Amino acid sequence: MKYIGVDLGGTNIVVGLVDSEGNIVKSYTRPTLTTRKTEEIFDDIIDMCQIIIEEFKLDSTSLKGVGMGIPGEIDSKKGIINYSNNIPMKDFNVGSYMQNLCKKVNMDIPFFFANDADCAALGELVAGAGKGHSDLIILTLGTGVGGGIIINHKIYSGFYAGGAELGHQTIVHNGEPCTCGNKGCLEAYASASALIRDAKKAAKENPSSLLNSLTNNNLENMTAKVVFDAKDQKDNVAIKLVDDYIEYLAVGVANLINIFKPEVLLLSGGISKQGEKLTTPLKEKVSKKVFGSDLQTIIDIATLGNDAGLIGAAMLSR
Amino acid sequence: MKYIGVDLGGTNIVVGLVDSEGNIVKSYTRPTLTTRKTEEIFDDIIDMCQIIIEEFKLDSTSLKGVGMGIPGEIDSKKGIINYSNNIPMKDFNVGSYMQNLCKKVNMDIPFFFANDADCAALGELVAGAGKGHSDLIILTLGTGVGGGIIINHKIYSGFYAGGAELGHQTIVHNGEPCTCGNKGCLEAYASASALIRDAKKAAKENPSSLLNSLTNNNLENMTAKVVFDAKDQKDNVAIKLVDDYIEYLAVGVANLINIFKPEVLLLSGGISKQGEKLTTPLKEKVSKKVFGSDLQTIIDIATLGNDAGLIGAAMLSR
Repeated sequence: MKYIGVDLGGTNIVVGLVDSEGNIVKSYTRPTLTTRKTEEIFDDIIDMCQIIIEEFKLDSTSLKGVGMGIPGEIDSKKGIINYSNNIPMKDFNVGSYMQNLCKKVNMDIPFFFANDADCAALGELVAGAGKGHSDLIILTLGTGVGGGIIINHKIYSGFYAGGAELGHQTIVHNGEPCTCGNKGCLEAYASASALIRDAKKAAKENPSSLLNSLTNNNLENMTAKVVFDAKDQKDNVAIKLVDDYIEYLAVGVANLINIFKPEVLLLSGGISKQGEKLTTPLKEKVSKKVFGSDLQTIIDIATLGNDAGLIGAAMLSR
Repeated sequence: MKYIGVDLGGTNIVVGLVDSEGNIVKSYTRPTLTTRKTEEIFDDIIDMCQIIIEEFKLDSTSLKGVGMGIPGEIDSKKGIINYSNNIPMKDFNVGSYMQNLCKKVNMDIPFFFANDADCAALGELVAGAGKGHSDLIILTLGTGVGGGIIINHKIYSGFYAGGAELGHQTIVHNGEPCTCGNKGCLEAYASASALIRDAKKAAKENPSSLLNSLTNNNLENMTAKVVFDAKDQKDNVAIKLVDDYIEYLAVGVANLINIFKPEVLLLSGGISKQGEKLTTPLKEKVSKKVFGSDLQTIIDIATLGNDAGLIGAAMLSR
């Protein structure tokens, strides 16, 4: 049996054929071009699905379904995109629109829809760092902090659409302003953007810090990697920044463990490339914060990178 | 079909017969006497179950099972009490011990075990304020802040035992010390104890506040009810205390809604007796804090009081 996955991102659309082990057999990429009409974006997706179906001569005995990972608030049950910020879409009945693919290839296809971060969580469970487990939480440390929850092999995103907003738990009441309009969210402390914000401020206040030389004295060049590099070179300002960053991340992680006690908690996104430099101090801090008995949850780095979303989307139709 | 529920509390053991609608047909109460051996406590429970089984002439065609709500960390799958603080118990194999009841009444009985707060959540879903719904979260605002989660009609308490510790989410990094050893937990702001702590401090700092006269100038008489009463009598100090209390509670509630988007979120425990005086301002604050679309979750007061735990325990064997 084969599975088609669609990863609709702010930059690219990726449509791929995935086998039952979660391996990508073939994939195609086209630019999303977010300024066009929603229907035009999905016409491209339909076209890409059709190409794969015809190339691999898929029929209803060999194709289990098409799963789609979409940024924003998705009503998975009804097949409706309530809204999306990255790609301007609102109240779009994607379930109904995708029937156009069925007409084109003249076959009944089951469609499945989920938020893209939720798909990434499922992808890691099936074919990534969560393989062999059943219950997983993923935090994506990028421009924002995304989240996905897997309970008993399935995506959990709340009773109403759009839950699992793990980056928007308040950890500092009246703290740093968050992009969501609230204050003190985990995202406002544990995203790459938050680390860059704090690093720029610290660099200004400490002219001799390596944060300045490593950015060629232009703070617009500041990245999360620069901060971790400066820390590796024993820059005291960067050491403090990274320690604070991991402290806040640990608060959010411990909160989630106290609620879900998951088998595995994975970190993905740009900052997760720090690997054990991130997870070792994080585990130490989380151990001290979790309620009750010892830390049982495995804390690790996600392994599939950008493929997680595509693989997880495909696996929606398992 | 009938169901036996056991509510093992720090003060009393309640064992009752419950019908399929969640009504208590009959119940018996004995003191827990927590200083005795764990086996002796469970011998009492076995005895009380036997009395009910014989009184109602229950057999395997009329008794679905015995469900037990136990304070502490319960491994529901294995039938083991990992530990309990309220009643000193550790690594007790309750599943195995309850087989003594089967021998006494000469019948096979299915046993079910869960944390007592989780049982209260299930009780409210079956027969209380959550009736007719499938997905519910309960926060008990008492000496501490307890929590229970129901997903799709079933208790969710994490992959490993002892999750759903909703009172131990950090909402103020490095905030007030919590009984759990951590700082800034929701419990350290939204428990009755937290409100009493803050009210004592405020009363001392404001000698003319009603908080002093209403406690006969003895702050040891301070209760959460006194603070709400003083607020109702337009005492400015109490108005601020209650507003701050509800603000922190709103942060915790919004965090949970951002993750679970539950159908219903219920408040129970002493402070919940304030009813709409609590829920009306709470809903207003939560509405401003939740991520994305409008507040869909119903926020309400639990209705079963102390019976919730017994009813929910019985309903474990549904």
